[in-house]
Formats: sequence, C-alpha cells, structure tokens
Amino acid sequence: MILALAGGVGGAKLAHGLARNIDPSELVIAVNTGDDFLHLDYFICPDLDSVLYKLAGINDIERGWGIRDESWNFMESLKKVGGEDWFQLGDKDLATHIERSRLLSEGQTLSEVTRALCRKHNVVHTIVPMTDHRVGTIVDTQEGDFFFQDYFVRLRCEPAFTGVHYKGMEDATPSPQFSKALESADLKAIIFCPSNPFVSIDPILNVPGVTGALRTTETPVIAVSPIIGGQAIKGPAAKMMAELDLPVSPLGIAQHYGGLIDGLIIDNEDRMLVGPIMATGIDAYATNTLMRSAEDESLLAQETLSFVRGLSGNRP
Amino acid sequence: MILALAGGVGGAKLAHGLARNIDPSELVIAVNTGDDFLHLDYFICPDLDSVLYKLAGINDIERGWGIRDESWNFMESLKKVGGEDWFQLGDKDLATHIERSRLLSEGQTLSEVTRALCRKHNVVHTIVPMTDHRVGTIVDTQEGDFFFQDYFVRLRCEPAFTGVHYKGMEDATPSPQFSKALESADLKAIIFCPSNPFVSIDPILNVPGVTGALRTTETPVIAVSPIIGGQAIKGPAAKMMAELDLPVSPLGIAQHYGGLIDGLIIDNEDRMLVGPIMATGIDAYATNTLMRSAEDESLLAQETLSFVRGLSGNRP
Repeated sequence: MILALAGGVGGAKLAHGLARNIDPSELVIAVNTGDDFLHLDYFICPDLDSVLYKLAGINDIERGWGIRDESWNFMESLKKVGGEDWFQLGDKDLATHIERSRLLSEGQTLSEVTRALCRKHNVVHTIVPMTDHRVGTIVDTQEGDFFFQDYFVRLRCEPAFTGVHYKGMEDATPSPQFSKALESADLKAIIFCPSNPFVSIDPILNVPGVTGALRTTETPVIAVSPIIGGQAIKGPAAKMMAELDLPVSPLGIAQHYGGLIDGLIIDNEDRMLVGPIMATGIDAYATNTLMRSAEDESLLAQETLSFVRGLSGNRP
Repeated sequence: MILALAGGVGGAKLAHGLARNIDPSELVIAVNTGDDFLHLDYFICPDLDSVLYKLAGINDIERGWGIRDESWNFMESLKKVGGEDWFQLGDKDLATHIERSRLLSEGQTLSEVTRALCRKHNVVHTIVPMTDHRVGTIVDTQEGDFFFQDYFVRLRCEPAFTGVHYKGMEDATPSPQFSKALESADLKAIIFCPSNPFVSIDPILNVPGVTGALRTTETPVIAVSPIIGGQAIKGPAAKMMAELDLPVSPLGIAQHYGGLIDGLIIDNEDRMLVGPIMATGIDAYATNTLMRSAEDESLLAQETLSFVRGLSGNRP
C-alpha cells in the first residue's frame, strides 16, 4: 500500500504517474481540501478536481487546470449579466461542482461524493479528501489574512506571505480511507507529491492526527521537491519560501519538512544539494523531476518507488 | 399605455411586435411566473426568460426557447457525472438563472431582478413578473396533479388535462408595475398575447385583484387567439381544449375568456368564425396571426392596436 499526499497540478502529475504503476487496491491519494470554497452556491474543490481530471485523462494540459476542450459560454454570459466572474468556471467543469453540491446536500460525505465522481469518470484508483470536515486554509500576509482563493485568485499571491492558519481544523479528522491508509500494516510509503508545501501539503499534515502518525510510523516518508533550480514549476511556492527567508531550493524544502521526512527526491539540476540535504539527516536522490509528459510522470513515479525501497524506514 | 399579458414563446413574439411599435414608456409586459421553479438550486423563470431573450434579440428561433448559438457542454458533462438532466440548460442560459438566484438571495424582488437583467441585455421596454410572490401552477390531470414542469417536460403533457390550481396564489399580489399599469388612467388596452390560455394567461388572471380589475375597467380587453385552424402553433393548448370539451378553435378561446374580453383577434384561416364569436358578444377581427418573422410580429401588433382603437372600451 502506497499513500500519496497531493495538492493540485504538480501533485496530480505524480499521482497520475503512481496510478500508472500501482494497482488500484494498493494506492490511496489523499488530497488537500483547504482551498475548497463555496462559489455561486456551489462547493468547489480545486485540488480534488485537478487530481480527478488528471486521472480521468480529461485535464487541460496547456491551461494547467480544469477540463480540456472546455467552453466558456456560461462565464461570458455571466459577465454580461453582471455576475461574479472573478473565478473562472468552464461549462463542463461547472457540472462537477453542481453535481457534487447536489450529492453533498443529500447528506453524502465528501469522500462518498468523490468516490461517485471518480466512478462516473472511470477513475479506478482511490482519490480521497484529506478530511470530510469543512476546513479552510487562511493565508497570513503582511497585508492581512485572506481565504486561500482570495489570496490566490483575487490578489494573485501579491501580498508578502508570512504563514497559514486554518479554519475549522481543530474539529476535523482524516477521512476514513486516509485514516485507514495511515494505519495500514501494509503501508510501504508515504509520498508528499511535488505540491506547494505551505498551502497544499501542510493543510493535509495539519489534519489532527496526521503529523503524529507520520512522526511515529515505521513507514518511509518521502517528499518530491516542488522546487527545481530555484523556481516552482507552477504557483507561488518559490515566492513564499523567499518571503519566509527559507533557501529557495530543495534545501529549503528539506528544512521545512525536517523531522517528518526520511527522504527527498530532487531534480538533477539541483544534484549538488544531495550532500547538504544528507547532512541534515534526510536521504536525498536526484533524478528528472520535471514532468512534461505522462512518460515523465510514470518514470518519476518509478524512481520514487525505487528510492523508497532503498530506505530503511527508520528515522536517523 | 398598453398592458400585454404574456406567457412564453407565442406571447414573446407579440410582445416583441408591440415593443417595435410602442414607446418604452407606454408598454408594460406582465409575464406568467406560475411555471417558475427551483432546479439545481437555481430559480428558473421560463416565461420571463423567453420574453427577455426575445426582446434582447438573442432568442433561439429554431428551438423556440433559450438562447441562440447556445452550447451544451455543461449539460453533457452533468449527464456524464449522473446529475439531473431532465431539464435542458444551455451554457449561456444557465448564467441567467445563476445571476437571478444570486440577486434574489440578496433580497431583491423578482421585479427588481428582472429589471436588472433587462438592463444588462439592453432591453428598454418594461418586462415585469405577474407577481413578486412565489406561486406555482399545478396541472390537474386524470392521472393526478403535477407541478407544471413535471407535466410539461417530464410527462410531455401526456396525462389528460382537467384544469389547474395554484400554490401560494392566495397571498400573492400583482407586481408593483403590473398593478400600476392595471390602475393607470392612461391605459388604452389590455392585450392577452397568443399564449396558452390555461397555463400561461390564466395564472396571470388568477393573481388576486387582476380579474376584478379587468371586469371593472373601461379599457378594452382583447385577446389574440393562440389557436389557428384547430391547432396551437406550439405547446399543448389544443390538446387541453379538446380534453376540456371546448371547441378547438377561436370559438373555444372566446368561450374560455368570455366575460373578460371585449375583442378577439383570430387568424384569417378561421375568418368564418368572426360571426359566431360576435354572436357571443365579443368583437372579432381576422388577420394573419401566424408570426414567422419580426415583420409578422410587428404587423400583428399594429393590427392589434388598430383593432383596439376601433373598440368602444365598454362591454356589450
């Protein structure tokens, strides 16, 4: 059994690579839900959707989010009648939010709804929300605190980042399948996908019980660095690291996850950092981590699984 | 001042003809809202939308409802994920329902929301709901009572029609501008557009106070027959008339509206019925009532206005 923690696009890519190499019964992908929000009365789960669309093979590659061959007639008409147009919703994508909201309003949990949506899209691997509770990631900045979508979409990540806190997290518990995977005697690896550490992976780690489980497990915990050559492939991770005075490199990732991870996979471009990372007590391995194709995703997944097999599973 | 009562497509056509011939300050179009319903959490007003889209010049002519150059990606995706697909919603059309619902949830009345939507679509004439109260037309059939949309869309009007009743009508009042038009000293005519008498015009007449106002007004009240040569141009009006044992002809329309209307405009094809209708105490005039083009709509509007001018305004 492999447990992958994933945020949006970068996480979805490695999750897809893992799914191509692991039997459906042996992979659980636990996805960040701290960005979820109500919009136009619908419940939108950006990261769950990114992973769902990616595994369903219907994701838009160029745009990096949403569904491919999308149309925007709803959005254009909504703009015309003066509706809320700050969050882009494609015509096809909207159906996911509307059906999810209907199922939630019938009393299904987000786990159940996600399973139903996966089934409809013929996704056979297990995608689960980090929690079935409603939680929200609040981004703290030098200009105040903002709900994630405000910071990300409306403010374009411009205010200087100082940290995050969460709304509703104290009462949350890991979703049943996430919890079961964490406790599984067969768990062979916990993999942090190359998602934003602060707003994608940390929310998952902050679901009560998760960090404790990671600190005590014998199972190897590894991360794949979302930073390559001082830059994030997508999103504000590099900017956030700089604003937190962390080295904008895999070394900063190692520092951030220090005490939780046994190993870190970094890009060949950063291979000179293998030594410095090892010196912090974290095993490191350099390979190609830039995923431009399904082939790249699959190869990185194979390298990741092979790296895990080489780790003892005991913390230094 | 001219007051037109309208349902969906047929009503929208004559309303459009009237709008092309009457100054915006001198025409009020009061529209049936008995078919309005909540769907996917949104408030849908089929007849208001038909009139709005028609006057905005964005209606689909071939389909007869909705917006032209529409796309259906939302609907197809919703079907795919197992959502409620019995009511067709185009991608562009959906924006109207979502924005309307948002404005209603902010506390605006349906009149205010309709005015806002008209403004956004550059419609300068006054379209108002028959009432700002939430009412529902219930269709009575030999197989039971159904909400209008159930009868119309789901059951395709198949159960034999026996009548209608209303939900919420006892507490309703005419919308402010409809009320003001009814009471206006300048009112020159009240025109029943060629809409379904039972499920489009009757709901408007059943808003408390409306029939009373029509019975006592000195203003000529006239109808344009929706039945031509024994058939309705669109919808179940002819079938309903047959099921109620009314003559399926303008004579049946005259019987149905008897006591309320001073005049009835019928199609040239039915001109042999001018005499029999006059014999019931209702003035009748035959002209071309089949509206295939904006030109036809405008000509019928002109004929209607000219017919009204020829009436005394006093009931026989």
